[in-house]
Amino acid sequence: MLGQPIRAVTAGASLIADAVEAEQVRVDWRPPLETLRPDPETDRANQEAVSRILEAKPLWVGVGTALDIIPGMRPELLLHSGPPLRWEDASGPMRGALEGALRLEGLAAAELEPCHHHQAVGPMAGVISAGMPVVIVEDQASGRRAYSNLNEGLGKVLRYGANDDAVLERLRWMAQVLGPDLRRALEAGPIDLGAINQKALQMGDELHNRHRAATSMLFRELALRGLSAASMKFIDANEYFYLNLVMAAAKAACDAASGVPRSTLVTTMARNGTEFGVRISGASERWFTAPAVVPVGLFLGSYTQADANPDIGDSAITETYGLGGFAMAAAPAITRVVGGSAGTARDATLEMYEITLEENPNHQIPSLDFRGSPTGIDVRRIVETGIQPLINTGIAHKQAGVGQVGAGLVRAPVEPFLEAYRWHSSTSA
Amino acid sequence: MLGQPIRAVTAGASLIADAVEAEQVRVDWRPPLETLRPDPETDRANQEAVSRILEAKPLWVGVGTALDIIPGMRPELLLHSGPPLRWEDASGPMRGALEGALRLEGLAAAELEPCHHHQAVGPMAGVISAGMPVVIVEDQASGRRAYSNLNEGLGKVLRYGANDDAVLERLRWMAQVLGPDLRRALEAGPIDLGAINQKALQMGDELHNRHRAATSMLFRELALRGLSAASMKFIDANEYFYLNLVMAAAKAACDAASGVPRSTLVTTMARNGTEFGVRISGASERWFTAPAVVPVGLFLGSYTQADANPDIGDSAITETYGLGGFAMAAAPAITRVVGGSAGTARDATLEMYEITLEENPNHQIPSLDFRGSPTGIDVRRIVETGIQPLINTGIAHKQAGVGQVGAGLVRAPVEPFLEAYRWHSSTSA
Repeated sequence: MLGQPIRAVTAGASLIADAVEAEQVRVDWRPPLETLRPDPETDRANQEAVSRILEAKPLWVGVGTALDIIPGMRPELLLHSGPPLRWEDASGPMRGALEGALRLEGLAAAELEPCHHHQAVGPMAGVISAGMPVVIVEDQASGRRAYSNLNEGLGKVLRYGANDDAVLERLRWMAQVLGPDLRRALEAGPIDLGAINQKALQMGDELHNRHRAATSMLFRELALRGLSAASMKFIDANEYFYLNLVMAAAKAACDAASGVPRSTLVTTMARNGTEFGVRISGASERWFTAPAVVPVGLFLGSYTQADANPDIGDSAITETYGLGGFAMAAAPAITRVVGGSAGTARDATLEMYEITLEENPNHQIPSLDFRGSPTGIDVRRIVETGIQPLINTGIAHKQAGVGQVGAGLVRAPVEPFLEAYRWHSSTSA
Repeated sequence: MLGQPIRAVTAGASLIADAVEAEQVRVDWRPPLETLRPDPETDRANQEAVSRILEAKPLWVGVGTALDIIPGMRPELLLHSGPPLRWEDASGPMRGALEGALRLEGLAAAELEPCHHHQAVGPMAGVISAGMPVVIVEDQASGRRAYSNLNEGLGKVLRYGANDDAVLERLRWMAQVLGPDLRRALEAGPIDLGAINQKALQMGDELHNRHRAATSMLFRELALRGLSAASMKFIDANEYFYLNLVMAAAKAACDAASGVPRSTLVTTMARNGTEFGVRISGASERWFTAPAVVPVGLFLGSYTQADANPDIGDSAITETYGLGGFAMAAAPAITRVVGGSAGTARDATLEMYEITLEENPNHQIPSLDFRGSPTGIDVRRIVETGIQPLINTGIAHKQAGVGQVGAGLVRAPVEPFLEAYRWHSSTSA
């Protein structure tokens, strides 16, 4: 069965496919093993791995230039979202972003490597070039650091594949003004992102596509530190400003959980616009991939589903950390952005408890009487239940240069998780 | 039956009394008329009255000193919350606040009049003296203005009856620094409170005892206008700062609905710590009163229900406007402050639809798929259903000088609504 092409599987509870105008292909998928054999060694490994995620205390500790800050960064290197990608395989928005970054850096060509190979994450195309300002987030519990670029706003922006002069001008301003302003503000001490995440979930954010509360709380903190009027105005106009910070927080927490032998905990879900990649703790740096699926959602202006690029971005690190699609019960208003109803948002979270190991007390959901968000995806549970992780996401136009066309929901393709499980089984002691 | 003393009636759906440790008295109350006779004239009057509430567009237009701004204000006058009150009938926290205001103004004695008689509202004791800074809110639709003082924060504050030197020092700083700072910020133009209210309901505020989102959005706006660091710090430390603004907004909207002949729409619910007062549109300035009830709730530190003063404050103007207890479905996290669960918060809103005329499209509740909050209480529906308005509220210590001891829920006593209905019936054409 795994040899067959599967574009978008909505087996298991199909609530989201029911809730929005779904083009997703429904197949009568059944897991290869109805019940897995008991495996106490893996159970113990998973408990160790997930405990590191639950214990994470992410702090925003600084801002710097990618070349100076990101391990292994080089002037002629462009980082991108998702698993490894060749230039010739890049989708439209990824090509648009890469070409824009070349012009921004004055390069004729560059090598490509995933953000995830450099302790970094970037939303959508996720392109980070040497001169870009990046945030430094540290998990106080593990000491791990993670990095992300600064959020540009919505619409015609580099991460959605737009690359005209206005896009590059904004990026230059961000490097020359916003980044240094933020660096100075951070010199007064770290900002506790864990505390903001907890509060934001009580204020209707799910922290993948709704950041109004988190951005507001961050704004308050930065204003009290004397951020310049121009930088305050920029952040005030961009409700997604917090996205890149919560992504770096999630990356630091998930990296802390990586490398536990025998653990089947998912530590990475990331898409490059062509492929969807998964990594699990016990397999460390190894990627398991499948073709990326096209999200189903709500579209801006006259754009339609036909304009949508396949799923793209490292931002699924938020779901990997138990936020975003996994925390939608906290954010019924997100349905205005990604589709569905308050009921489907709530059901999405309830369903994700079926494939996760723990409930994170740092991410409490008031509408579920402060139950912790479903955290720590176990590939074994995906295999047993057939439930695929639910991701909410921005949608890029499939052609280079256009930008954002909508936002919606997508189920992770099941194959990478099955492959990860097979790898795990094949390497048993 | 109406001659009997009724302390707290929880007839009708008794969900809140079930949800918290209730001392409230359950009586098998039945309305005097099971079904009221059709009354198209009153129906039309109510539609006119409630349409004015729905059309209200509250703007924060300025800040000034009470003596200069509030109609009829005099140096030797103290305004207070609720219906008219004599000094000798004042409860502990009201006496504490009045005595503090006398010291603040350097007065030996003063006259008392309700805030509501001067287009004003104040939370808890609601004491406004001539030298206090007040906010000016205007309903753009009707041109009506309403006023409130500035919020001091929580704990030992004048409005909860505390009046030591630290309390008065803070009030002096608010008059000397905060008020003028805010006045300057408002000179750049009005701030749209209606837009903040709508967004805040999508961010987990119900806008009576949860204002974190609204205060954050207000902070953003004021920071962009160059508010001083000291004033920003004060507002940042007080998640209730927005309360007095939403109260003034509600007051302007409800005043716009007052004075429609034959209307049974409730335009005021207000408590002075001794009595609970109600006014209806068709009876304009006439008060219908009953003894105030003791709220049931959650207590700070070692305080208990036995320390609680009877219900106090003009802040029930938020419920009169369809917010607070009426909008609790938007704010499941409020249960950590006032008691109950996410389910009871949701059920509270659903119940209030039974006694209201409309759903306010300016106050949409995402968890109810953006249904407008229940707005426009009709005393006829209270009489028909036996359902009493639900108010969530801060709780003051019953002794003067102590301050806040908790927060909780209270049902409005039924008698004032019955009296208003009898007055309405007795004045039929």
